[in-house]
Amino acid sequence: MSSGPRTYRLGEIVARLGGELAGNQDPEISRIATLESAGPGDLSFVSNPRYLKQLGATRASAVILARGQREATRLPRILCDDPYAYYARAAQLLNPDTRPVPGVHPQAVVDPGAQVAASATVGPFCHVGRGAQLGERVVLAPGCVIGEEVQIGEDGRLGPSVTVYARSVIGKRALIHAGVVIGADGFGIAPQAGRWIKIPQTGRVVIGDDVEVGANTTIDRGALDDTVIEDGVKLDNQIQIAHNVRVGAHTAIAAFAGVAGSARIGKHCLIGGAARIMGHIEIVDGVTVTATSFVTKSIRTAGTYTAVLPAEPAREWAKTIANLRSLGRLPRRVSEGETRKKPGGRKGKR
Amino acid sequence: MSSGPRTYRLGEIVARLGGELAGNQDPEISRIATLESAGPGDLSFVSNPRYLKQLGATRASAVILARGQREATRLPRILCDDPYAYYARAAQLLNPDTRPVPGVHPQAVVDPGAQVAASATVGPFCHVGRGAQLGERVVLAPGCVIGEEVQIGEDGRLGPSVTVYARSVIGKRALIHAGVVIGADGFGIAPQAGRWIKIPQTGRVVIGDDVEVGANTTIDRGALDDTVIEDGVKLDNQIQIAHNVRVGAHTAIAAFAGVAGSARIGKHCLIGGAARIMGHIEIVDGVTVTATSFVTKSIRTAGTYTAVLPAEPAREWAKTIANLRSLGRLPRRVSEGETRKKPGGRKGKR
Amino acid sequence: MSSGPRTYRLGEIVARLGGELAGNQDPEISRIATLESAGPGDLSFVSNPRYLKQLGATRASAVILARGQREATRLPRILCDDPYAYYARAAQLLNPDTRPVPGVHPQAVVDPGAQVAASATVGPFCHVGRGAQLGERVVLAPGCVIGEEVQIGEDGRLGPSVTVYARSVIGKRALIHAGVVIGADGFGIAPQAGRWIKIPQTGRVVIGDDVEVGANTTIDRGALDDTVIEDGVKLDNQIQIAHNVRVGAHTAIAAFAGVAGSARIGKHCLIGGAARIMGHIEIVDGVTVTATSFVTKSIRTAGTYTAVLPAEPAREWAKTIANLRSLGRLPRRVSEGETRKKPGGRKGKR
Repeated sequence: MSSGPRTYRLGEIVARLGGELAGNQDPEISRIATLESAGPGDLSFVSNPRYLKQLGATRASAVILARGQREATRLPRILCDDPYAYYARAAQLLNPDTRPVPGVHPQAVVDPGAQVAASATVGPFCHVGRGAQLGERVVLAPGCVIGEEVQIGEDGRLGPSVTVYARSVIGKRALIHAGVVIGADGFGIAPQAGRWIKIPQTGRVVIGDDVEVGANTTIDRGALDDTVIEDGVKLDNQIQIAHNVRVGAHTAIAAFAGVAGSARIGKHCLIGGAARIMGHIEIVDGVTVTATSFVTKSIRTAGTYTAVLPAEPAREWAKTIANLRSLGRLPRRVSEGETRKKPGGRKGKR
Repeated sequence: MSSGPRTYRLGEIVARLGGELAGNQDPEISRIATLESAGPGDLSFVSNPRYLKQLGATRASAVILARGQREATRLPRILCDDPYAYYARAAQLLNPDTRPVPGVHPQAVVDPGAQVAASATVGPFCHVGRGAQLGERVVLAPGCVIGEEVQIGEDGRLGPSVTVYARSVIGKRALIHAGVVIGADGFGIAPQAGRWIKIPQTGRVVIGDDVEVGANTTIDRGALDDTVIEDGVKLDNQIQIAHNVRVGAHTAIAAFAGVAGSARIGKHCLIGGAARIMGHIEIVDGVTVTATSFVTKSIRTAGTYTAVLPAEPAREWAKTIANLRSLGRLPRRVSEGETRKKPGGRKGKR
Repeated sequence: MSSGPRTYRLGEIVARLGGELAGNQDPEISRIATLESAGPGDLSFVSNPRYLKQLGATRASAVILARGQREATRLPRILCDDPYAYYARAAQLLNPDTRPVPGVHPQAVVDPGAQVAASATVGPFCHVGRGAQLGERVVLAPGCVIGEEVQIGEDGRLGPSVTVYARSVIGKRALIHAGVVIGADGFGIAPQAGRWIKIPQTGRVVIGDDVEVGANTTIDRGALDDTVIEDGVKLDNQIQIAHNVRVGAHTAIAAFAGVAGSARIGKHCLIGGAARIMGHIEIVDGVTVTATSFVTKSIRTAGTYTAVLPAEPAREWAKTIANLRSLGRLPRRVSEGETRKKPGGRKGKR
């Protein structure tokens, strides 16, 4: 989504977002930048103390620092409890969403039985099906396909070529990026006599408020009951959420993660990139799964779970894998050793 | 795809689908539901005996059971050999596909040299190229792009924004979900003097009858020969099928699985989610590959193949990985042990 | 992209592409084919010596061979240094790109403030935003959405339903396949009081010349600085490139590979399918990462890196994993063995 930048005095930013202003000047700020690439008019930040050493060389007009780092620079600065969160809010302030002109583009097709708020924007080449409801200020970028009886809450924004299948429900303030598919059939097939019978997928996808969904992610509709994404969930690109999954509120899931059918993930979880969650298991609140790890059974206790195998130089790995393969023989050799070690050193019976 | 539900007496269902009716009533059934969420008018089922205990509490009007479970409830019930397959067929009966009105939408673009059956439906914002052939009752949802000389057999249904590149062939009764890309170039590049030369991909994608393809899956065209998906194959979401792959009939592949170039997968295989198949290998009929496993060489014998590393609490995993890394030293220590263990306990020669 | 084949005499091919003609005939060649599927009029090739044995049975009219294989057949033949690269160039010669008619389709929407070269082609259902620039001979297949101020260099070709978000820059001769999303927001969120604050993603995607991007791949815009794909990079299908990544020139990345935020990959690297690169690390030039391997820390030395676990029959794997799990106990048992091995064979102190 494009955005139109504005400028603010540093003091205005503090007046709006809190924190403490330090330094003798009140420079005009037009954008946020990293310490390394910042120039005049830029506000930068240090969220990780190891970057403090870059403060001396930065050309930023001002910086955001933790309260304890007051003396780390003489630049105009904002002192706050959490510089990273402050940076996020300052960036929102400096990059407000531009709102497109409301209305339905003449080259969109909206079924007469759909309800589109007057403040909503429907781009060209969108199709909105019968009974669909688009709330106040909803924006559909070009090429979206909204199925029958879909509901999209106020301030929802869909990127180009998003598909929302029939009867899906999306809450308020959704941000759905290009190519996302919501509500396609789950993978429901039953074997019979060497062939597959399709199981109609009659559940829905129900998405709460304040959910972001990354480009080309897919969320399948439920087989009988619904697939549910609770409030505040953040999904990165190319994630697969299978039918009847539930993702708890404020959980964040990184790119390529896959959640198999009927799995339930708790609230406030962090699921790393390319992590896999087995079907029909349950993960409690507050669990972190590291990138690439495969969760094969339910997790009942909050904490971090992993099975990462770091890549090694091929020669090192060849030894590791050879040893792993030979493990089947190892215990026997050790046992033989123990047997032979009998008093007197003679080989014992086996 | 949306569907319009109908109602049936339980006896009507048995008359159509077989099985044995038990119980004194013949309730009217309007939908299928799980034991837990069912209410009046719902038909439920027990395909896994561990759910039998939920029978006492269900509010379903009737249930589908295995023949041996006749006495598990007094509810009106259908007894059959395979409750899961019966459920699938009953769900199909209760959720018949609704057929859109035939015809080409005025906001679609169909090349004059394309052949579109009069019974086919082409949605708005579809483009159908020269020489393409759409069979009887084919349905294109909005935004599909059908390349030149593509063939789609009768009763094929494509979801929104599906791309089918030139000369691809799709058999009868295909069900292709949103965002699928069929027939894009395979990844064919040849190194020369530090740069890559593109190898034109001149083969096709040829897909048999009764194939389902999940949302955002990609199937590349062959480099010289064709990429082939045989009859009855079921592909889940976000799968990648590379150039010149062959997938045998009635094989099912779960989400995120990837099949590299020129691999051949047999018939009636089950490939788990996020499984990877190396290029240029062959897998015989009847092989199961578990989720996340990587098949690196040909499989000549039917059976189950795996390399799953289950995630563990991070502290446990740290020990495992440290031990794995130290394996290179272990055998030596064991050997030293064996050497030292010589009769009399003195250290032997090495 | 469709292509119109031409025919050439074998001698004409040599005149254009180099190499040495051998054999007494100068057949007319219409296409390239594998040794196995070739027929009259086909040119085949042997890039791997193990296929030399198929030469006797091929029905090809001519073959491309390495110089040392002059005597391997009596067929008309081209002798050259690198038969695979020669095949690539011969295939390009025989399958020239057909250029669509220039112009903007009447059912496209191009903002009056966009600049579209007269030689460019904009297909139906494309949307080109304000300030976008499409260079000479750029081709947009149907359904592409080009955001505001996007630049696409000359001879770029975009497949169907490609999305390019605002301000992205794409160099010359790009080939972008269907469903690709360039410039969607990176996954930038900051935790605050149990919720996530969105971090506006204000950087761009900048792509060099001669880059190919496979179907449904996603490349996110930078958070503050840009995401950069250098010249000559080749990306396969369904790859995820996160915000602020840099991919060095002439690096090739296979399907499903994922590169996390701010990682830097060098030039002339090969990244295998489904490989994962951790965020904020650096990989030098000339590194190969094998398929499915996870690079968790910076790589400072060129070479091959891996952590492949090949799938095994389930019974074998069960032993391996049980042994891996028991590794935590193994060293202790070995130590006990060493302790017990004291001279005289009696159990020592611990």
